[in-house]
Amino acid sequence: MTRWRILVIHGPNLNLLGIRERDVYGTIPLGEINKRLSQEAARLAVHLDVFQSNHEGRIIDEIHSALGKYHGIVINPGAYTHYSIAIRDAVAAVRIPTVEVHLSNISAREEFRHHSVIAPVCIGQIAGFGPDSYLLGLAGIVKYLEASTCPKNA
Amino acid sequence: MTRWRILVIHGPNLNLLGIRERDVYGTIPLGEINKRLSQEAARLAVHLDVFQSNHEGRIIDEIHSALGKYHGIVINPGAYTHYSIAIRDAVAAVRIPTVEVHLSNISAREEFRHHSVIAPVCIGQIAGFGPDSYLLGLAGIVKYLEASTCPKNA
Amino acid sequence: MTRWRILVIHGPNLNLLGIRERDVYGTIPLGEINKRLSQEAARLAVHLDVFQSNHEGRIIDEIHSALGKYHGIVINPGAYTHYSIAIRDAVAAVRIPTVEVHLSNISAREEFRHHSVIAPVCIGQIAGFGPDSYLLGLAGIVKYLEASTCPKNA
Amino acid sequence: MTRWRILVIHGPNLNLLGIRERDVYGTIPLGEINKRLSQEAARLAVHLDVFQSNHEGRIIDEIHSALGKYHGIVINPGAYTHYSIAIRDAVAAVRIPTVEVHLSNISAREEFRHHSVIAPVCIGQIAGFGPDSYLLGLAGIVKYLEASTCPKNA
Amino acid sequence: MTRWRILVIHGPNLNLLGIRERDVYGTIPLGEINKRLSQEAARLAVHLDVFQSNHEGRIIDEIHSALGKYHGIVINPGAYTHYSIAIRDAVAAVRIPTVEVHLSNISAREEFRHHSVIAPVCIGQIAGFGPDSYLLGLAGIVKYLEASTCPKNA
Amino acid sequence: MTRWRILVIHGPNLNLLGIRERDVYGTIPLGEINKRLSQEAARLAVHLDVFQSNHEGRIIDEIHSALGKYHGIVINPGAYTHYSIAIRDAVAAVRIPTVEVHLSNISAREEFRHHSVIAPVCIGQIAGFGPDSYLLGLAGIVKYLEASTCPKNA
Amino acid sequence: MTRWRILVIHGPNLNLLGIRERDVYGTIPLGEINKRLSQEAARLAVHLDVFQSNHEGRIIDEIHSALGKYHGIVINPGAYTHYSIAIRDAVAAVRIPTVEVHLSNISAREEFRHHSVIAPVCIGQIAGFGPDSYLLGLAGIVKYLEASTCPKNA
Amino acid sequence: MTRWRILVIHGPNLNLLGIRERDVYGTIPLGEINKRLSQEAARLAVHLDVFQSNHEGRIIDEIHSALGKYHGIVINPGAYTHYSIAIRDAVAAVRIPTVEVHLSNISAREEFRHHSVIAPVCIGQIAGFGPDSYLLGLAGIVKYLEASTCPKNA
Amino acid sequence: MTRWRILVIHGPNLNLLGIRERDVYGTIPLGEINKRLSQEAARLAVHLDVFQSNHEGRIIDEIHSALGKYHGIVINPGAYTHYSIAIRDAVAAVRIPTVEVHLSNISAREEFRHHSVIAPVCIGQIAGFGPDSYLLGLAGIVKYLEASTCPKNA
Amino acid sequence: MTRWRILVIHGPNLNLLGIRERDVYGTIPLGEINKRLSQEAARLAVHLDVFQSNHEGRIIDEIHSALGKYHGIVINPGAYTHYSIAIRDAVAAVRIPTVEVHLSNISAREEFRHHSVIAPVCIGQIAGFGPDSYLLGLAGIVKYLEASTCPKNA
Amino acid sequence: MTRWRILVIHGPNLNLLGIRERDVYGTIPLGEINKRLSQEAARLAVHLDVFQSNHEGRIIDEIHSALGKYHGIVINPGAYTHYSIAIRDAVAAVRIPTVEVHLSNISAREEFRHHSVIAPVCIGQIAGFGPDSYLLGLAGIVKYLEASTCPKNA
Amino acid sequence: MTRWRILVIHGPNLNLLGIRERDVYGTIPLGEINKRLSQEAARLAVHLDVFQSNHEGRIIDEIHSALGKYHGIVINPGAYTHYSIAIRDAVAAVRIPTVEVHLSNISAREEFRHHSVIAPVCIGQIAGFGPDSYLLGLAGIVKYLEASTCPKNA
Repeated sequence: MTRWRILVIHGPNLNLLGIRERDVYGTIPLGEINKRLSQEAARLAVHLDVFQSNHEGRIIDEIHSALGKYHGIVINPGAYTHYSIAIRDAVAAVRIPTVEVHLSNISAREEFRHHSVIAPVCIGQIAGFGPDSYLLGLAGIVKYLEASTCPKNA
Repeated sequence: MTRWRILVIHGPNLNLLGIRERDVYGTIPLGEINKRLSQEAARLAVHLDVFQSNHEGRIIDEIHSALGKYHGIVINPGAYTHYSIAIRDAVAAVRIPTVEVHLSNISAREEFRHHSVIAPVCIGQIAGFGPDSYLLGLAGIVKYLEASTCPKNA
Repeated sequence: MTRWRILVIHGPNLNLLGIRERDVYGTIPLGEINKRLSQEAARLAVHLDVFQSNHEGRIIDEIHSALGKYHGIVINPGAYTHYSIAIRDAVAAVRIPTVEVHLSNISAREEFRHHSVIAPVCIGQIAGFGPDSYLLGLAGIVKYLEASTCPKNA
Repeated sequence: MTRWRILVIHGPNLNLLGIRERDVYGTIPLGEINKRLSQEAARLAVHLDVFQSNHEGRIIDEIHSALGKYHGIVINPGAYTHYSIAIRDAVAAVRIPTVEVHLSNISAREEFRHHSVIAPVCIGQIAGFGPDSYLLGLAGIVKYLEASTCPKNA
Repeated sequence: MTRWRILVIHGPNLNLLGIRERDVYGTIPLGEINKRLSQEAARLAVHLDVFQSNHEGRIIDEIHSALGKYHGIVINPGAYTHYSIAIRDAVAAVRIPTVEVHLSNISAREEFRHHSVIAPVCIGQIAGFGPDSYLLGLAGIVKYLEASTCPKNA
Repeated sequence: MTRWRILVIHGPNLNLLGIRERDVYGTIPLGEINKRLSQEAARLAVHLDVFQSNHEGRIIDEIHSALGKYHGIVINPGAYTHYSIAIRDAVAAVRIPTVEVHLSNISAREEFRHHSVIAPVCIGQIAGFGPDSYLLGLAGIVKYLEASTCPKNA
Repeated sequence: MTRWRILVIHGPNLNLLGIRERDVYGTIPLGEINKRLSQEAARLAVHLDVFQSNHEGRIIDEIHSALGKYHGIVINPGAYTHYSIAIRDAVAAVRIPTVEVHLSNISAREEFRHHSVIAPVCIGQIAGFGPDSYLLGLAGIVKYLEASTCPKNA
Repeated sequence: MTRWRILVIHGPNLNLLGIRERDVYGTIPLGEINKRLSQEAARLAVHLDVFQSNHEGRIIDEIHSALGKYHGIVINPGAYTHYSIAIRDAVAAVRIPTVEVHLSNISAREEFRHHSVIAPVCIGQIAGFGPDSYLLGLAGIVKYLEASTCPKNA
Repeated sequence: MTRWRILVIHGPNLNLLGIRERDVYGTIPLGEINKRLSQEAARLAVHLDVFQSNHEGRIIDEIHSALGKYHGIVINPGAYTHYSIAIRDAVAAVRIPTVEVHLSNISAREEFRHHSVIAPVCIGQIAGFGPDSYLLGLAGIVKYLEASTCPKNA
Repeated sequence: MTRWRILVIHGPNLNLLGIRERDVYGTIPLGEINKRLSQEAARLAVHLDVFQSNHEGRIIDEIHSALGKYHGIVINPGAYTHYSIAIRDAVAAVRIPTVEVHLSNISAREEFRHHSVIAPVCIGQIAGFGPDSYLLGLAGIVKYLEASTCPKNA
Repeated sequence: MTRWRILVIHGPNLNLLGIRERDVYGTIPLGEINKRLSQEAARLAVHLDVFQSNHEGRIIDEIHSALGKYHGIVINPGAYTHYSIAIRDAVAAVRIPTVEVHLSNISAREEFRHHSVIAPVCIGQIAGFGPDSYLLGLAGIVKYLEASTCPKNA
Repeated sequence: MTRWRILVIHGPNLNLLGIRERDVYGTIPLGEINKRLSQEAARLAVHLDVFQSNHEGRIIDEIHSALGKYHGIVINPGAYTHYSIAIRDAVAAVRIPTVEVHLSNISAREEFRHHSVIAPVCIGQIAGFGPDSYLLGLAGIVKYLEASTCPKNA
């Protein structure tokens, strides 16, 4: 029996994973990441759905529709990380605990990728572990949900 | 049999954990975090040592002395995150894979805490999960080491 | 007989009004605001249509399609206020008199919400009156249209 | 019977209205604006007094003396908008609900006019409607006072 | 027989060309520009398709779907030029040679239009020639493709 | 019969082309570029002269002496692009239509090369096509002159 | 017999002390502060006069008229601290030793309150001790005057 | 017979001239400057009045009252030069030709004195000649008025 | 009987006092300051200990060890004032009331000395009185402790 | 008999005066300005030479060669005003009293023209009086030289 | 007989030289550099001691203890170059002539390495010559000491 | 027999050395520096030529003509250090190893002299040793050339 329902959101250009800039993002395609996420979800006994879109508006719609359906969100906002205040506001609005993840170590890339407008309304941020960033993000949201339903200890 | 040797470095003021600003950092003392880290290390079959100092110079010395002794470092540089180029240079110099972790979500705190001078020379950064940031960081470094010794896939 | 046709555009996340961050945006849902707008429109003898979207592109499309159909626009661009130069260009392109409104007093919130990229191509801006910002905006556009068709006095 | 007492404050150079830079501020003199404000006040059944000064200190004195005498303030701080932290502090100190108004759309003028140091301590800001900015401001403060004395709904 | 397949992408608001701000963008409608492009394409013996959208997400989708179908892209990203890191990433991801074009001389307009976030991942940028910017862009991409398939000389 | 007289100005260090930083500027020497320009000029039926100098003052003198002698200028100001307000003023002063060209994609190089102080007084800018930037610039100025002498259409 | 004559200047809005923003400035009214200052002055055997104004110009006039009448000034410039270069110039002009005091810890408030344009021409600055800032300031100016008339030791 | 009526305005702290910071401003008192100005005015056959105030508001009032009474203004705004947008607006409002003068070379002093918010609405600025700055300013305004009433030549 | 225990911390280079840059810091050695502090402590009936170190880490250790031992801290962080976020965090962590003092008027020195990263977590700051800054700081902390244990009045 | 020898230096593009951008610089050619300067020099009984160059290096050479030949310099550095630190150093090196003049009111033009790198090493600056700026500059340098050889009074 | 006593200080991470980032710092270990320094010192007939520490505080202690023992210091502050105002103050305090040296050309590395907070209080800076930077620094300090004890000539 | 041919370039205003601002640059004329350089060159067995110009263009020409004639360059770019990207490009283009030298310690002078646009393309920079900067620079380039022709060791 799954304890929590988690939504994973892949932002713009992540559909090209494994095709696109392999030196930066690695060679593993999105389908493979989703498969690993499902296995991990099974291991953690949580339900997991995935969603990908290149459209800022659709990502916002999806976050809205998560209200009442999911206990947590793992989001890789891709390039929207750096300017989509609208996605930030969506995350803040639904108040579903959210973890921001990045494949690459954004601190080590162009200056404009160092700053996230979305992270301040998330639980936290995980960056730099390639596909494992998602798995760590999933583990993180689950730990957070566990801690929130137990007597508070963090 | 442990596969890898991991060093965990706690930076300045982390010895006060559980005492200090509990609204920001939680109520769990450093000893408890270290105990959880040991349990997780056992589970992951890695050797783990911990080190804490408020001294920038001692942290640098410790990183240097890790050369040839550890396969990975998990570091919470505390306030040094934001200005210790000397610690950054130490991490870059020893070339031991390093993960930067933070208890709090530094993106959601004062402006001057958003930027890390150390993260660009790390594998990645994990922030905002309280004591679990360390556990996720440990999991992350282990995943990284596993991937580095298998046929490269990320 | 209605004198003018006015389009009200609600930007991203405003569909969550009354649900989302009530301490910032209040407890009145969007439907209620639209009802009040209709009553005020009736009182002012103007025709009023409303449109909401979380999609920057759809908002632009809607502004374009207003050409020849509306005499004035009241827009709350939500988070797009702060970066959507594309919406700014759409407003500038159709040259339909437009009023920018905000529920909250954006000058009193985060630094990044102080600046509007859209306001410079509007008649003016009204912020901080909650749902009444829309009613004042509607009154403002009507006054503007009245003044534009009378001998110029402002 | 007037329900509330409102003070309108005109800041520096507004005494020249109708004489000064007509392309920016229009041709209507201050006396005419005050007359329209009185008519609107009568319609809204509120008492209204007006005050104009080019002196920062006198504007502060006037705001102070409003304590216990007025329920709301409508202020056009003119050029002081952009640097008079002393007027800001006066508004914050008396805690009388205040609306900031501007004849012109300050977002569309010189860069240094985009920022208000006073708006953050006001209810909100209305700009760009010429003399109607005052009328909308009066309507706004009255709506605000109505809402504050009814069961809270915004 | 056409040698190469080229995709021309028109960004937001360009559908209003000839209607919108004629003093800035001229009086020639988009259809006319497309016609001239087709004629030039015929003269250069290349296949040419055109696409217009006001939606950032659709432009990204279109760039993705160009993979394997086009040898070069000519893009006028309109207002997205200045902030759409997502479109930048799409261009970088597909690695199809791309030329950025602008009708107006963006260096001579508002400060915020001087900077392109997309140009750094393009071959180059052409701005200021009105509709001819597209024709020069088409000529430029063809020259680039010619040079890339001959012995390298630039 | 040549219709217009065009002056091509090569700025500092361009005399070293083909020798200097080939990875950035390519292997084609300036003489070869000038030859290609002459061929293209012949094809376009325009007269073309070329001038190269490393001296800011001589470039200004040359622009001045173009008054009454040339209908258009194609200039690659080299490093002067980024700071020579004096060359900018010369271009603005003579009011001869001018196109700024660059071999490399200056947007993709060091931050200080992104900004041109000269482009704002030119018709437009072409960058990134190697030697072809000059040919496109020549085509551009000719198109501009054609359009200026026909009934205005851009 | 009083040894020195000291002028205390209270800047804008300080007349509201005890009424205004008590969470920031405390509940002690200005009259009480003046009484405590008088007692301390008596204890220190110095003559003390106090002056309050909300007018920048009057504060300047008062500083000028202190020439030849006072040996030292204790000033709380209130909001003028942050922009009144005119008061700074007055202090610098009369060359009467001056101490700047603040009730609140201005370093811990809004960014714009961190900087004083007046402090650089004062002996020093005391901030954060509530009404005691004045008493410490008085003690400080007296110590300074004592040291200046004894053989120099600081 | 005097041809024009000129108003000279001395800003804050200038009443202390000759007393104040002699190393910066020289030893000549304001009375002496006024005497020299009168002599020069007589020589130039213009009427001259002088005004000094430390109050921003009074300077604004004086500029307003100059409407219809003076043909030109010579103003040394003292410290207000650097922040009084209200004085700037007064000068712009009355549209009386105005020259800004400074005793010292403000470009050679503290960074914050390099910028004038008033100069952009004046004819020009003269700085650095000590008391002679006023005499040159008077000569400048007279030359300007002469040129404005003759056939335009500048 | 001493009422409170106070720790005085002297930061880097203060051991050289009286030797080092006498024109800036005066001629009184640290021993003499400590003697005066002891006399003042005796007069105020408080216990006083002093500590000096050039090591950021040791200062942090000392602040930590003050927990439970001291009621207040007077700290001159020397150069660490401007960058040691680690010392700031230590002060914030132990929550012992702390006063920051400086011998010189840091506002009147190099730009980089104007800002303190530590002051925001202190009660307040005293600067510019030479050795008397310490005595005023001691008086300030004692007044603060007195006020905190009496019925609150500031 | 001439009392002093004065050198007037006209910087880049000033040779085009009367031809170039007449709306900004007026219609009077350089020859006419030089003639007026000669007449004024005769009236003031000083010797005057003029020099014009578009070359930064030649202007520096000319300033050097003025050593021992001229008592004062009047320079309009044109565009070099804003970046030629080399001309600044030349002026500073020869220590000949120098006045910087500008035809236009540079404070009222593009942002980049507001700052002069040369003015800080001059006596002062005169801007905005068209050709009269030179005459005022000449009068200014003569007044300065007179004052320097009399008992100092400024 | 050695003429002067020189102290060489190696800052953080320099103990790893030859091990660390060889592409940046070369392959020569610190011991070898020290040996070369000793040979050069012998050749120059000066006494030389070396000191290395990763601790900012110990470097400060060492500089202090150099008082009265050394005539000159050659320091490579490593990463402390960019933020240790405390080391800067130590160098300024002891007033021992000091030369700052760097192995790499810091101007050609990351932006944050371009600026030294220590260099302004040194005689000068030498960077980019690898181990030879030390030898040149030693030669430089000796030349400086020679010049200081001879009749001054620089 | 000389091993290498070295070119020394003296930039603008250095011809005035010994005459100009002696407090900054010392009393030794350029001829004397050149003599010392020749002696040192003889000692080092290298051939040395010197060149001085105040003209940016001539310095660029000279660098170009050094191609194939010199093995190394020692350049003091004077004021051009801070803005001549054209000289930077010339140095980068010819790829002759170059050392930048300065008489004064530019880090200790005006802010705008701290940054060099040329140093990033040089081997390194030496500043602050007066005429000895040239001698150290010559020694440095010779050491560099020696190291480059031996088995690489730095």
